[in-house]
Amino acid sequence: MSEINKLKILNDPVYGFISITNPLVYDLIQHTYFQRLRRISQMGMSYLVYPGAHHTRFHHALGCMHIMQKTIQVLKFKGVAITEDEENALCIAILLHDIGHGPFSHAMEHSIVENVNHEAISLFFMNKLNAEFDGKLSLAIQIFKGEYHRKFMLQLISSQLDMDRMDYLKRDSFYSGVAEGNINSERLLQMMNVKDDVLVIEEKGIYSVEKFLVARRLMYWQAYLHKTSVAAELVLTKILKRAKELTQRGITLPCSAALQFFMQQKINFEDFNNDVLQTFSRLDDFDIISAIKDWQYHDDFVLSELSRMIIDRDLPKIRLSSEKPKKVVTKELKAKLATLYPITEKEASYFVLKGEIKNQAYNKTGEPIHIVRKDGTVEEVAAASDQLNLNALSKPVTKYYLCFPKVLLEKAGI
Amino acid sequence: MSEINKLKILNDPVYGFISITNPLVYDLIQHTYFQRLRRISQMGMSYLVYPGAHHTRFHHALGCMHIMQKTIQVLKFKGVAITEDEENALCIAILLHDIGHGPFSHAMEHSIVENVNHEAISLFFMNKLNAEFDGKLSLAIQIFKGEYHRKFMLQLISSQLDMDRMDYLKRDSFYSGVAEGNINSERLLQMMNVKDDVLVIEEKGIYSVEKFLVARRLMYWQAYLHKTSVAAELVLTKILKRAKELTQRGITLPCSAALQFFMQQKINFEDFNNDVLQTFSRLDDFDIISAIKDWQYHDDFVLSELSRMIIDRDLPKIRLSSEKPKKVVTKELKAKLATLYPITEKEASYFVLKGEIKNQAYNKTGEPIHIVRKDGTVEEVAAASDQLNLNALSKPVTKYYLCFPKVLLEKAGI
Amino acid sequence: MSEINKLKILNDPVYGFISITNPLVYDLIQHTYFQRLRRISQMGMSYLVYPGAHHTRFHHALGCMHIMQKTIQVLKFKGVAITEDEENALCIAILLHDIGHGPFSHAMEHSIVENVNHEAISLFFMNKLNAEFDGKLSLAIQIFKGEYHRKFMLQLISSQLDMDRMDYLKRDSFYSGVAEGNINSERLLQMMNVKDDVLVIEEKGIYSVEKFLVARRLMYWQAYLHKTSVAAELVLTKILKRAKELTQRGITLPCSAALQFFMQQKINFEDFNNDVLQTFSRLDDFDIISAIKDWQYHDDFVLSELSRMIIDRDLPKIRLSSEKPKKVVTKELKAKLATLYPITEKEASYFVLKGEIKNQAYNKTGEPIHIVRKDGTVEEVAAASDQLNLNALSKPVTKYYLCFPKVLLEKAGI
Amino acid sequence: MSEINKLKILNDPVYGFISITNPLVYDLIQHTYFQRLRRISQMGMSYLVYPGAHHTRFHHALGCMHIMQKTIQVLKFKGVAITEDEENALCIAILLHDIGHGPFSHAMEHSIVENVNHEAISLFFMNKLNAEFDGKLSLAIQIFKGEYHRKFMLQLISSQLDMDRMDYLKRDSFYSGVAEGNINSERLLQMMNVKDDVLVIEEKGIYSVEKFLVARRLMYWQAYLHKTSVAAELVLTKILKRAKELTQRGITLPCSAALQFFMQQKINFEDFNNDVLQTFSRLDDFDIISAIKDWQYHDDFVLSELSRMIIDRDLPKIRLSSEKPKKVVTKELKAKLATLYPITEKEASYFVLKGEIKNQAYNKTGEPIHIVRKDGTVEEVAAASDQLNLNALSKPVTKYYLCFPKVLLEKAGI
Repeated sequence: MSEINKLKILNDPVYGFISITNPLVYDLIQHTYFQRLRRISQMGMSYLVYPGAHHTRFHHALGCMHIMQKTIQVLKFKGVAITEDEENALCIAILLHDIGHGPFSHAMEHSIVENVNHEAISLFFMNKLNAEFDGKLSLAIQIFKGEYHRKFMLQLISSQLDMDRMDYLKRDSFYSGVAEGNINSERLLQMMNVKDDVLVIEEKGIYSVEKFLVARRLMYWQAYLHKTSVAAELVLTKILKRAKELTQRGITLPCSAALQFFMQQKINFEDFNNDVLQTFSRLDDFDIISAIKDWQYHDDFVLSELSRMIIDRDLPKIRLSSEKPKKVVTKELKAKLATLYPITEKEASYFVLKGEIKNQAYNKTGEPIHIVRKDGTVEEVAAASDQLNLNALSKPVTKYYLCFPKVLLEKAGI
Repeated sequence: MSEINKLKILNDPVYGFISITNPLVYDLIQHTYFQRLRRISQMGMSYLVYPGAHHTRFHHALGCMHIMQKTIQVLKFKGVAITEDEENALCIAILLHDIGHGPFSHAMEHSIVENVNHEAISLFFMNKLNAEFDGKLSLAIQIFKGEYHRKFMLQLISSQLDMDRMDYLKRDSFYSGVAEGNINSERLLQMMNVKDDVLVIEEKGIYSVEKFLVARRLMYWQAYLHKTSVAAELVLTKILKRAKELTQRGITLPCSAALQFFMQQKINFEDFNNDVLQTFSRLDDFDIISAIKDWQYHDDFVLSELSRMIIDRDLPKIRLSSEKPKKVVTKELKAKLATLYPITEKEASYFVLKGEIKNQAYNKTGEPIHIVRKDGTVEEVAAASDQLNLNALSKPVTKYYLCFPKVLLEKAGI
Repeated sequence: MSEINKLKILNDPVYGFISITNPLVYDLIQHTYFQRLRRISQMGMSYLVYPGAHHTRFHHALGCMHIMQKTIQVLKFKGVAITEDEENALCIAILLHDIGHGPFSHAMEHSIVENVNHEAISLFFMNKLNAEFDGKLSLAIQIFKGEYHRKFMLQLISSQLDMDRMDYLKRDSFYSGVAEGNINSERLLQMMNVKDDVLVIEEKGIYSVEKFLVARRLMYWQAYLHKTSVAAELVLTKILKRAKELTQRGITLPCSAALQFFMQQKINFEDFNNDVLQTFSRLDDFDIISAIKDWQYHDDFVLSELSRMIIDRDLPKIRLSSEKPKKVVTKELKAKLATLYPITEKEASYFVLKGEIKNQAYNKTGEPIHIVRKDGTVEEVAAASDQLNLNALSKPVTKYYLCFPKVLLEKAGI
Repeated sequence: MSEINKLKILNDPVYGFISITNPLVYDLIQHTYFQRLRRISQMGMSYLVYPGAHHTRFHHALGCMHIMQKTIQVLKFKGVAITEDEENALCIAILLHDIGHGPFSHAMEHSIVENVNHEAISLFFMNKLNAEFDGKLSLAIQIFKGEYHRKFMLQLISSQLDMDRMDYLKRDSFYSGVAEGNINSERLLQMMNVKDDVLVIEEKGIYSVEKFLVARRLMYWQAYLHKTSVAAELVLTKILKRAKELTQRGITLPCSAALQFFMQQKINFEDFNNDVLQTFSRLDDFDIISAIKDWQYHDDFVLSELSRMIIDRDLPKIRLSSEKPKKVVTKELKAKLATLYPITEKEASYFVLKGEIKNQAYNKTGEPIHIVRKDGTVEEVAAASDQLNLNALSKPVTKYYLCFPKVLLEKAGI
């Protein structure tokens, strides 16, 4: 395929069009590692609450690249020097920043790939691709690892106002229909600038930043931490935990070879060699959901009942509260459940679940958002704001959940 | 669950909100048969061209029900008598009209379930559900079968301007980002009325009808019959054909039990008993894609190569033309391919494909769209229009394709 | 015109369609008093900042009626009893709630009609119309005056979450393109209910309320109190003040008879008889702008220079600060200006302006927004919220401005 | 003001943001000639049908410039050489292409400025501005006059697929809410290219062209030629004709000096000197509507009754037909009207009106739209299309109207 034919335009309902302006980017997108992201849902189990939320990490990664291109244009228009090599590296780094995600990451990281986070896996993939593409990804990797001398470039990829957040809020809001999360990413990026190698927002953009943080907070409580999504995620985690337990007891569960591998092995960071990476690269939503569809009919009651809950969307009840549920309550619920289901009290722990969910819309410490005044002074955004609102948004909120099968609602009368 | 709690509101990015206004509708949606539609993509393989097109038949069915509700409101406002029972039946009929779809229907109907169309299977499901719900679906079924005395009700469910088309054009356009297909369904339904038991559009809506038909035509050529989608669909059909062939030669391919069943059996209309229906109800996109992921590594070159094409989106070249490709051309291509691939010339037929695609935006004969004048006279829309445009739209367009692996492009130099 | 022909559907880019479902509403809209609202801009001088903001009070009033209809539907669906008479009265009351607005109200109320607010004038119009329409507006007037026994009905018309605010935020955001103000009014009204005759929002709508209040605050600072709009508004106020002053000195300025009348008279509440009302009803944006166009060429420097500033959009400089500008500064600026312009130091007060702008997104006291918990308890929204955010939003913010001609910038070097 | 501060970003609800990327463009926008376009409505009297249609020629001109910028970017990306000077000239030419429009052009050109079209006046303005700006507009003027050697540049400004049409269809559709006219201008311009100095559309854009032409046709019949708009336009034309007639009889009507001037003079092309241009530049919607408001109370029945019809939106009845109304019918209607109104039969011609409206969506002759095939061949679009549709769209449609006061409906019983 000729290089010129690799400059493509893709339809995107969110931004209208996404352009591929570089042949290497085209080749990376075509790579089997990247195509795999087509089969990984961006919002995990959220489609059980918002039926439109079936968009993929593939689409999100393209969207991130698109707004990276726009942001680079804006910064260059304002006189920030960015070379063509840096531009390409930034696009590649953001395109690949999430390539290490597995299916239903949140549940996976709590049950299957316990000791390696997705950023580390992204880096494994990038290094592998760099070898395949003769070192052409080196600068992208340097930026991604924070080793490049121009620090604002990392902030474009990973900070509290990075391209990742700007795309996922807008995209998740669009596909789920949770209008509260819709942000004006185009306006935000028009306000960006670089001052002393720090990514800053121009003063008049302070209300857009506030809107962005509020939108993010609302998306957390209405979508990412929606109680039904949380319940589904919990059930999924428990399914994978049970499956792993049964596998390690020697029971072979029907599932794909790749999933089988990760249920049999305990993979640590140092084990993540090329073979493991290759097997990991075969894993996507289809492995997980197909297995669960099958496990509905398994003899193990815990496994089959949890699996059925997902497939038939017959999810457990979940209650949120500002206080931790009492131990005595969960103990009683488990005891009761052991009389209703063919399970032991210990196995009841797969069904009666407690824990916490937490969100902080904005974190003033660490890597805060900066505002630049007309006179050139730079200030942290909450300090620069004319009222308490941004401070209020930086207070973390914690909620405690108690999750249990609906049968307890009817029979135990809670 | 109490009846009042079944009256739910769902977010929908297309219409804002969809209301469930009837407990029976809630129960049908919760049923495992209907939940299965969550796992069947509405646009099949189109996401390989339009990365946003991952919406499901589940969502489409809800959308149809929503605009059915709106249309009923409009008709009642205009004085058309519709009883509460009829209203519920119409909502149920449209909700379930596509429940018989299998995964990737188009490919399936050419390779796996060859002799039973999805409308027939929808009816099997409806009858089964009617038995489970004590006959409460009887009126819906009567309307769906065209046996109810009020004929316009069937036209709301199945005609050239039915709720199905009004939702899928709008929804497919929304999720794919093909703005050309966006129709103003709200305006169209505001123009609907019933005259002598026939569904009609008021005269001033004639331009909206024209826009609708043009939008439909554009969606066919830009999305449903987009050449890359057609190529993907063809490859999928050939995969399933090959898999069935190998299975019937006695080779057991790894795949789900449900898919296995349909590869081993030849199911005719009369065989479609409750067991078959039950097995069919377990089949969804996950069975197909998971199998194809696995078959990439199969020994059979035809099966593995075709499978890889889908998974890596490394699709064959496809050329459209207004003339049929010559037999001699395909013959030569197959011969050449047999020298490049480890396959026989006969097996080359799995890779070198020809055929036709066809679309007619509007069909004046049969069940045409009717316009009602202010004086009450009713006319077929193309006749009522002030110019040739609608006549032009009723002329079918046929294009011929020739599809072959890219390797031929490079090696055979075509 | 027959009654049935008065049931119309209007296109509205904001909601899609607005229906007139009652012949009396149709007649009120057709009335010359209401048609006059077509000639009164909703956002005053804001089009000088946001060129799309030319929508009218006419359109806003229709929009309010539309969401009133929707809200009534929702409340009735939830079991709140609302009679047909009450429904019509609510629609009429909201349709007419702003009919007393004059052109550029804010400037007018500070210069021309100094002692009568627009709500009072709305009531004069309603009473006049009630007489014309044989008392058919009596219930609407009762509700509007807060004299009807069902208190929640007034809250729909006038409170911190009324139909007025829900329409104007959405509409102003739409036409100006200030996306930050876009609210999800449909979602908000889906959450409304009535508890013990108080309008309440269901618990799960608390994030939507927060989003609404944040959006309102952002619209204030980015649109209504945008510093350029404020400057234009100030200039307009001074033009009218100067014109009145000159008129009262006996100089006849060219302008319409209606405007002439209000410049010559000082109208108090008790003077507002039918003749005054009739004259007032002839006043709209065209009287003001046409006069200003003419006054550009007047001999009086103050009048002509201020007028030119508006017509050529050559607005003065305005600076916002959290502290009051010092008296000595304005004094100096005036002195300097008197040397640059052919005016006295006293007349310089028409050009060097200071004052304050203020906004409080939410007022916890008075008529707060109420949340109803699932258990039926009702709480004020800031108290019900899980974090400080809503409290932060209830803190008023004040900014001080200093406004002066650009010539001072260049010549006086400030 | 420093040059850098002239690079502004404006909010636009249609495109998100419009950038001013050149200080000269900023100065032109600030000029009193251009600011005047803020006071000229883009869609004339259409707001009487579509209450949102209050957007201005100012906004449209900015929108045109915006998509010109985008198109230039696309063409340059595809390798079309465009110098910076040409780029600026194209932006200026499109920005100013409509600057010669008077208020309610259509009515004006039939009654006040009878012998000079708005393109000619645009050129007078451009030449005047060129003198003021030291010849910096020379290249823009050359392109505008079709005298520049690169012919495709004129096609960007004036052809069947120019920036003007692309903006006005989208913008008029947006503000009026007539969704049928919404076009995907971004997609269209992505498809543009230049071949042998001719503006062409790439083959795959053929459906977008068709959609564009259908949208244009629908906007004509649903908005620009909507029968109520036509009626309002006719009444306005007759008001101005009557006013001119009375003025020339020596009666001084109250109105602005600028309007007075054009009612007293008959201006020909050769009379259009700087003084006339200066007076013309003071004329906008406010002159016309303010005069009409006043004329409602004039002694002349014809003038006052026609004026009242506009102000109270009490428009005459209009009937469309595919056949010309018979002379005898209009004669009878006039005779009858003379018995109902205090007017002569001759004066009745101001109220009983007939004529035709006409639209051709696409004109194959003259300056057609061209498609470029993948192999580089260029073809006229209707010839290149795969079906009759585009031919159908090139057939002109004519409708005949008969317009008369409603009183005839009731009294004469027609």
